[in-house]
Amino acid sequence: MKALVYNGKGKFALEDKPVPQIQEPTDAVVKVLYTTICGTDLHIVKGDVATCTPGRILGHEGVGIVQEPGSAVSRFKKGDHVLINCISSCATCDYCRRGMYSHCEKGGWILGNTINGTQAEYVRIPVADSSLHPVPQGVDEKTLVMFSDILATGFECGVQNGKVQPGSTVAIVGAGPVGLAALMTSKLYSPSLVIMVDQDPNRLKVAQKFGAEYVVNSAEVSAEEEVMKITNNVGCDAVIEAVGVPATLELAQDLVAPGGTIANVGVHGTSCCLKMEKLWDRNMSITTRLVDTTTTPMLLKLFAAGRLNPKDFITHEFNFKDMEKAYTTFQAAAQHQALKMLISM
Amino acid sequence: MKALVYNGKGKFALEDKPVPQIQEPTDAVVKVLYTTICGTDLHIVKGDVATCTPGRILGHEGVGIVQEPGSAVSRFKKGDHVLINCISSCATCDYCRRGMYSHCEKGGWILGNTINGTQAEYVRIPVADSSLHPVPQGVDEKTLVMFSDILATGFECGVQNGKVQPGSTVAIVGAGPVGLAALMTSKLYSPSLVIMVDQDPNRLKVAQKFGAEYVVNSAEVSAEEEVMKITNNVGCDAVIEAVGVPATLELAQDLVAPGGTIANVGVHGTSCCLKMEKLWDRNMSITTRLVDTTTTPMLLKLFAAGRLNPKDFITHEFNFKDMEKAYTTFQAAAQHQALKMLISM
Repeated sequence: MKALVYNGKGKFALEDKPVPQIQEPTDAVVKVLYTTICGTDLHIVKGDVATCTPGRILGHEGVGIVQEPGSAVSRFKKGDHVLINCISSCATCDYCRRGMYSHCEKGGWILGNTINGTQAEYVRIPVADSSLHPVPQGVDEKTLVMFSDILATGFECGVQNGKVQPGSTVAIVGAGPVGLAALMTSKLYSPSLVIMVDQDPNRLKVAQKFGAEYVVNSAEVSAEEEVMKITNNVGCDAVIEAVGVPATLELAQDLVAPGGTIANVGVHGTSCCLKMEKLWDRNMSITTRLVDTTTTPMLLKLFAAGRLNPKDFITHEFNFKDMEKAYTTFQAAAQHQALKMLISM
Repeated sequence: MKALVYNGKGKFALEDKPVPQIQEPTDAVVKVLYTTICGTDLHIVKGDVATCTPGRILGHEGVGIVQEPGSAVSRFKKGDHVLINCISSCATCDYCRRGMYSHCEKGGWILGNTINGTQAEYVRIPVADSSLHPVPQGVDEKTLVMFSDILATGFECGVQNGKVQPGSTVAIVGAGPVGLAALMTSKLYSPSLVIMVDQDPNRLKVAQKFGAEYVVNSAEVSAEEEVMKITNNVGCDAVIEAVGVPATLELAQDLVAPGGTIANVGVHGTSCCLKMEKLWDRNMSITTRLVDTTTTPMLLKLFAAGRLNPKDFITHEFNFKDMEKAYTTFQAAAQHQALKMLISM
């Protein structure tokens, strides 16, 4: 089969690889119909993710058809259409029982990281019963790919961790796919206002289309001054950091209201400054989270009900044979005004 | 009357001051019976607290007798014995309605900071109805002084913010009075174990007496290695920082388990390092809080019921005429094995 393979820092290629086989009775082999590329895949290609070694098939998002269920798989049969979860979970270890699937002792984020992933014609899914979702009836399967990772990540790591409530004031730093997913899902809780902060005018325009009441271009103005002006010098109840560099998490610390929360969503490779002299008496919190996908079934219900539709996240479509071009396009996302690339097999 | 006055960086003295008068109908003038000295008072004397200006009478803890209630005070009458709360709260502003008394628009921490405090024969208490507590029947009024600040601070900023639950593993960094108050009140939730980390062998001995299952002297061994050994390489569910310097908050980041919380209690004057490369996917949180004292009535109930008794916090007693000596003794707390100084008027 064809597969997109990481070949060490800066190198990736579409290559021939053997079709994966069942290894454990709880596995399922899935024929991939659609996949996409995550910002994390670009991090891997840059050589930033030590757990992912050369030779790995990338990808942790996708929709497909069950080709072969292992003998212990009970929820899915051959031919079932499924959403592949970015997080694999055994549903039985201590962490899984607390809903912390991201820290599952057998799973967590393994697809396209420590085992082969979804950017291939076929993929082996371990602990399939608790790592695949049935496709809700009547939904668009291309858009469905957005539910493998980014919708749940924006919602759980950003909106839920940020304790967004009716009436909350929300600032989101970073209008990439995950920041926009946080924006879209924050609306489920009826905040009083959402401010999107970014440096890319195109992404800010998209944020406005997605419902941000205010947009702040932090390349042009002081984001802190603007947010304080908008919030009557109080700051925001929830500040969602969706970039993953020190500057944006440090900015978040200047935007949070007394009693508020900074919900970090970004993947960080270095330390940053924690302004305790300013924060120690603010009754605030900073949260971190790798998405657990505990809310994915609920988000799928909203999608099926037409209450949540991330189809506009898809800005580019490619056939899998052009996967390398899809990568280079996504690597220059700003230039191409790209959000998510939808890949059809 | 006599009062302990802050006279600018490094200077304090027992001086003659006029007896305070009612300024607002919601005020009460209280004759002080007992007071104490807080670590924060020492910070002020060092010149570290910009909001407290020279000439200020210090102190935000105490027990006394209502001398003169303002005309709008309805809960207290002349002669009532009262506990003075370190936090003044109007009980009506937006923050107070959310239980964030520490951020009260008329109050918060003002006593011995922006207005005159309790280290005096008399003190004016603003918004007295919601800033004083009736003395529970039959309790020791000396020990009661510990409920003005430290018990609630350890409990709210440490134990509650740290989400200590039955079975939790808890590490407390700093065995000063507030760290010990966190230890004592953590036991209300039946954690599976509490580890106390400090560099002072005497304070660690006290922590053991107060019920710490493990003590770690971080001057002698690696606290991280010890805590990981004790917790089977997982870390602690709740890590309570009760010192207030970068090194201890940075250590706390090495002790927290996946899904855990670092509850900062310490008063910080500078920034520290936030190890996001290690924490971004830990599903953890860091919380800060200035005590709100929302739980003080509950803590007083436990005290009256004999379930919580902080009398052993009092290591030294002084008469108010020796207040300057009490300060110099507390300034050399380690040398004198001092926890809390009880001052009788």
